[in-house]
Amino acid sequence: MKFNDFLDVLVNYEAGKPIELVVREFGIDAKDVIKLASNENPFGTSKSVEEALKEVAKNAHLYPDDSYFELKEGLAKKFGVSSRNLIIGSGSDQIIEYVLHAKANKQSGVLMAGVTFAMYEIYAKQTGAKIYRTKSMEHNLGEFLEIYNAKKDEISVIFLCMPNNPLGECLDAEEIFKFIEKVDENTLVVLDCAYNEFAKFKDSKKEIKPSEVVKLKNVIYLGTFSKAYALGGMRVGYGVANEEIIGALSKLRAPFNITTPSLRAAIVALDDDEFVQKTMQNNFEQMKRYEEFAKQNGIEFIPSYTNFITFKFNEPKSSQICEKMLKKGIILRDLKSYALNAVRITIGQAWQNDRVFEELEQILK
Amino acid sequence: MKFNDFLDVLVNYEAGKPIELVVREFGIDAKDVIKLASNENPFGTSKSVEEALKEVAKNAHLYPDDSYFELKEGLAKKFGVSSRNLIIGSGSDQIIEYVLHAKANKQSGVLMAGVTFAMYEIYAKQTGAKIYRTKSMEHNLGEFLEIYNAKKDEISVIFLCMPNNPLGECLDAEEIFKFIEKVDENTLVVLDCAYNEFAKFKDSKKEIKPSEVVKLKNVIYLGTFSKAYALGGMRVGYGVANEEIIGALSKLRAPFNITTPSLRAAIVALDDDEFVQKTMQNNFEQMKRYEEFAKQNGIEFIPSYTNFITFKFNEPKSSQICEKMLKKGIILRDLKSYALNAVRITIGQAWQNDRVFEELEQILK
Repeated sequence: MKFNDFLDVLVNYEAGKPIELVVREFGIDAKDVIKLASNENPFGTSKSVEEALKEVAKNAHLYPDDSYFELKEGLAKKFGVSSRNLIIGSGSDQIIEYVLHAKANKQSGVLMAGVTFAMYEIYAKQTGAKIYRTKSMEHNLGEFLEIYNAKKDEISVIFLCMPNNPLGECLDAEEIFKFIEKVDENTLVVLDCAYNEFAKFKDSKKEIKPSEVVKLKNVIYLGTFSKAYALGGMRVGYGVANEEIIGALSKLRAPFNITTPSLRAAIVALDDDEFVQKTMQNNFEQMKRYEEFAKQNGIEFIPSYTNFITFKFNEPKSSQICEKMLKKGIILRDLKSYALNAVRITIGQAWQNDRVFEELEQILK
Repeated sequence: MKFNDFLDVLVNYEAGKPIELVVREFGIDAKDVIKLASNENPFGTSKSVEEALKEVAKNAHLYPDDSYFELKEGLAKKFGVSSRNLIIGSGSDQIIEYVLHAKANKQSGVLMAGVTFAMYEIYAKQTGAKIYRTKSMEHNLGEFLEIYNAKKDEISVIFLCMPNNPLGECLDAEEIFKFIEKVDENTLVVLDCAYNEFAKFKDSKKEIKPSEVVKLKNVIYLGTFSKAYALGGMRVGYGVANEEIIGALSKLRAPFNITTPSLRAAIVALDDDEFVQKTMQNNFEQMKRYEEFAKQNGIEFIPSYTNFITFKFNEPKSSQICEKMLKKGIILRDLKSYALNAVRITIGQAWQNDRVFEELEQILK
């Protein structure tokens, strides 16, 4: 059967390995598996969310309130914007999809960093758009501008991942807003802030404020409940932008794009201040231990503003390291699919990190 | 800001009103609201699913096993097909989206019944495809064939909604397979069987078997957990087809397109035979009461093979009827957005239907 041409060039996203797979393939008990592969919250689900989910378990048959009224009100209040500046997605991934389907096409180009979140390219290719990447792996706004100026009529979307997944670096908000001033009003700049809570905890200069974004004509802020709020399994993200952009993207949103329990979980999670603070504090402290470990073992790393750290290797191959760790019941993220000989490790709780250091030291000996 | 042209012609799906809205707008207590607007299961969530959801509430932070291994195994066993014949979607809606993005484009056409599920057109328009509809509102395969033969080179996807939402009629499986023989191998026929469990309970000739579908080169079967399995709020649907079709659609599936609780709920629901039987039996018996009510009150209706019945009105307007019922705390589905002066009513439990009959009789007096 013939399918649309663009399917020929599509590749699938390679996700972090699930615990179920380690149980199935290596026969390791689920409770003995340490998963630090997908940047999930190491403290697990917050108590308040767990309770809320138990309460709504009886409502699995009911479609959610598709207006997402209460969730939007909560987010609007938190960010000092209007509900009309918000769109809800099944993860912020889905907003990336909407942005690209709304703006990109066979005649257009999409610009991003040399190494950045894989879904930008995957969704862009679904529209037939051309991919432009900076030579530098990390975000270099000079290079962005150079490519943009050369292809201004073609480039319809620019992705800035702040901080960057899977590398971890982060520019200052001030630099980013200065860069945006140089971009045409008809080019949409996506500020993917999935990990921005971690960045601003470490350094307030990294904070990107949605209330600033909505004042601009051509920028959308993406946030997620998957990381700081520990709802990776619930698939809730959001976009914040001016009403024109939100109006256009909303036309692409299918009804009921998040589940009934997800809606409840996100509403409750928004009030989880203490839990989020604990998450940030742990991440900040444990990150230092990873940096220390890397230095002691001569491992190259990028200072990270996220809840993960990326270790670069010369020898041995990252896939060998990940495979060996997997057999020990520790799931890390091989970045081979990003064409890097590197391993991304989610910052865990102290006891999980102890295990990582211990086993990794053995393997690297 | 300029967006892709196709956005100009997009309209949003008008969903059934949620209970939350009635509570907000009319100040009616949630427990006094009867919602028979979205074809949700009137028995609510099954006990086994509710228990399972309470158990996984602590795993909200964990991404699901994106291979959906266990769910696919369960479905494959149930239908007598291979796991490789299956794709999982966030509702069968999402499979409709994948099908259209994979097959339709600006140069192609999509064929469907005069009145059928609104999302076919909405997703088709996202690809710029032209919409062809039969003159008859209900499925008339003669008319389908006439249009198809006239536009064979253009039409890339044909939708058959069996039984049809929002009208309720259903053709025999035999007729459908005979029709498919007359369709070119390069045109994809989508058999949307979201309500097929209800149809086959009423009349075994309506049963469409996925095991027959996978033998064909150009057909996909769509099923859902939203109706018979009472998981409307969890957003889980599936497509069953030959491996070539599934392979192509899988390239469009984003990772983690269903939630961690949804995956668990669907796996558990598959074993809910008793609950599904109770649902079918109630639906079958209560449907007769609706038909009787319609006859007694001189209301025109289409004999339904689903879990809803559509009442057609001359006077008064369907929107007035729905508005009045809403004020009584009963949510029905106005079919105005389908350009019909009709009301779609989900078949409830006996006590809910009693309330509907009582209030509707008053309004129509």
